[in-house]
Amino acid sequence: MKDSSMQIPTFADVLAAHGRIAPYIHRTPVLTSAYLNDLTGAQLFFKCENFQKAGAFKVRGASNAVFGLDEAAAAKGVCTHSSGNHALSLSYAAGRRGIPCNVVMPRTAPQAKKDAVRGYGGIITECDPSTTSREAVFTGVQAATGGDFVHPYNDPRVIAGQGTCSRELIEQTDGLDMVVAPIGGGGMISGTCLTLSNIAPEVQIIAAEPAQADDAYRSFKAGHIIADDAPDTIADGLKVPLKDLTWHFVSNHVTDILTASEAEIISAMKLTWQRMKIVIEASCAVPLATIIKNKDRFAGKRVGVIITGGNVDLDTLPWTL
Amino acid sequence: MKDSSMQIPTFADVLAAHGRIAPYIHRTPVLTSAYLNDLTGAQLFFKCENFQKAGAFKVRGASNAVFGLDEAAAAKGVCTHSSGNHALSLSYAAGRRGIPCNVVMPRTAPQAKKDAVRGYGGIITECDPSTTSREAVFTGVQAATGGDFVHPYNDPRVIAGQGTCSRELIEQTDGLDMVVAPIGGGGMISGTCLTLSNIAPEVQIIAAEPAQADDAYRSFKAGHIIADDAPDTIADGLKVPLKDLTWHFVSNHVTDILTASEAEIISAMKLTWQRMKIVIEASCAVPLATIIKNKDRFAGKRVGVIITGGNVDLDTLPWTL
Repeated sequence: MKDSSMQIPTFADVLAAHGRIAPYIHRTPVLTSAYLNDLTGAQLFFKCENFQKAGAFKVRGASNAVFGLDEAAAAKGVCTHSSGNHALSLSYAAGRRGIPCNVVMPRTAPQAKKDAVRGYGGIITECDPSTTSREAVFTGVQAATGGDFVHPYNDPRVIAGQGTCSRELIEQTDGLDMVVAPIGGGGMISGTCLTLSNIAPEVQIIAAEPAQADDAYRSFKAGHIIADDAPDTIADGLKVPLKDLTWHFVSNHVTDILTASEAEIISAMKLTWQRMKIVIEASCAVPLATIIKNKDRFAGKRVGVIITGGNVDLDTLPWTL
Repeated sequence: MKDSSMQIPTFADVLAAHGRIAPYIHRTPVLTSAYLNDLTGAQLFFKCENFQKAGAFKVRGASNAVFGLDEAAAAKGVCTHSSGNHALSLSYAAGRRGIPCNVVMPRTAPQAKKDAVRGYGGIITECDPSTTSREAVFTGVQAATGGDFVHPYNDPRVIAGQGTCSRELIEQTDGLDMVVAPIGGGGMISGTCLTLSNIAPEVQIIAAEPAQADDAYRSFKAGHIIADDAPDTIADGLKVPLKDLTWHFVSNHVTDILTASEAEIISAMKLTWQRMKIVIEASCAVPLATIIKNKDRFAGKRVGVIITGGNVDLDTLPWTL
């Protein structure tokens, strides 16, 4: 499935990205919870990208792409398709640079995310909630605007940007045994692989995936990409499939992929809100759900957990539905 | 209304408290929000006691009382009456010291609160939901156990403990024009007055109160304590009246008391969850509600805002009722 022409980002790209995006992102805090440590038997270090600009880690990759454009390319703006946070993040970054941002979003995306995209100045074109429809509608939008396509994850600039997150996490903690992050398209996991394989190769990288959207898990076991169209999960940021660049990192550097049921994800999400007093998306409760489910594997370990975002529709919380 | 025998805590008591409780509390972070700064025109610095041990600032005062007891007194334990965060906090502190904590709670208190008190090792004796029953039952519990009574706010040890919060806030910010905190019984406001009048007397102290439980506002205007029986507000931590010690600080050091409606409080609470990604109680949304309502007064100012707690029933959020 590899494309021989694909540009695999390097750790030098991560370092360049970090310098480029520093003025536009937060160095987010790492929080701990005595309660969750007791519950799991592990020492958990939560990297809180829910506090990030635009509410998610995706602003790292988006900002790296936007601020890396030369003046001529920037003048035409940027465009993308996204289930949510990449749309917000690219709109935010484009707004900071003062260039247009066109976004194709599924019409079923949370209203809170659509409102936030528009709040940052993004222009939305809606599509049906399937990968096929999304890519078809996007082709039209891109042709009409001529904007630079910043893919939500299968883009070396985006992966290099996401890699800045685990660089901070390593700097903020005093040694880790493992890092657990959610996996959808694989952008965060790929950035994590890129960085840790360079600066902390001893750290195991565990990807956490909803059992109802376990295409990455099945790909990992099969040894090639398996892409399902429109899987269904409450973790709406994790429905998209792996692509060639992210598969490169997943297949070469990920230690394992663990899955959790919808009920386990919702329970871990609510527990995080209750005990840590932070608003996190269902998608980023998947790592904690897998840790609670596989305590023996994590007990006694120092485990980094990437909380990927906090953009939630507060009117439709999963435990009140 | 002053009791000539009352013991007014001093700033030396705050300093002693800070040293005493440091091992048992978090030095909570101060967060900012570009969005809320834009919205209000002020620079807001949120002191996040929702991240505090036991989920609220009350653990400061409770820990100061518990760890200040001599061995003989400690052996008999502590007791209080409270249906809220003080019950949790005193149970937590007593548990850390390994001494008994007896709490009188109305049988109608939420099961989640009772479970949390018991989770920290507190022993609950239930009373009927009336002042008469509560006082009768509490008198019996105190007589039977000989425990030290730690009042939720009208206790010099408690006020000195709460004063450690604004000491940290001043250390964590580079100069403030004002601090805004919610007012119920007045424990946090009194501690804030005690500390700021000593280390930052130029800082205005604004108390924020629900319009539907505005007994402190009316007391402040009248020049004496007005105590209403059982006011009704979503900000359930702010229903209790001022007492002699807290009135001393309110009447001598508070610059002004501002009020907000139930709808304004709920709106500010939801906005904080959405934009800051933190779980806060309705009670601690009252300051932001009053700032949004009185923008002219706060615009251009550096304003500390005390987020008092994060113990929320996630199944009954006010905007979903």
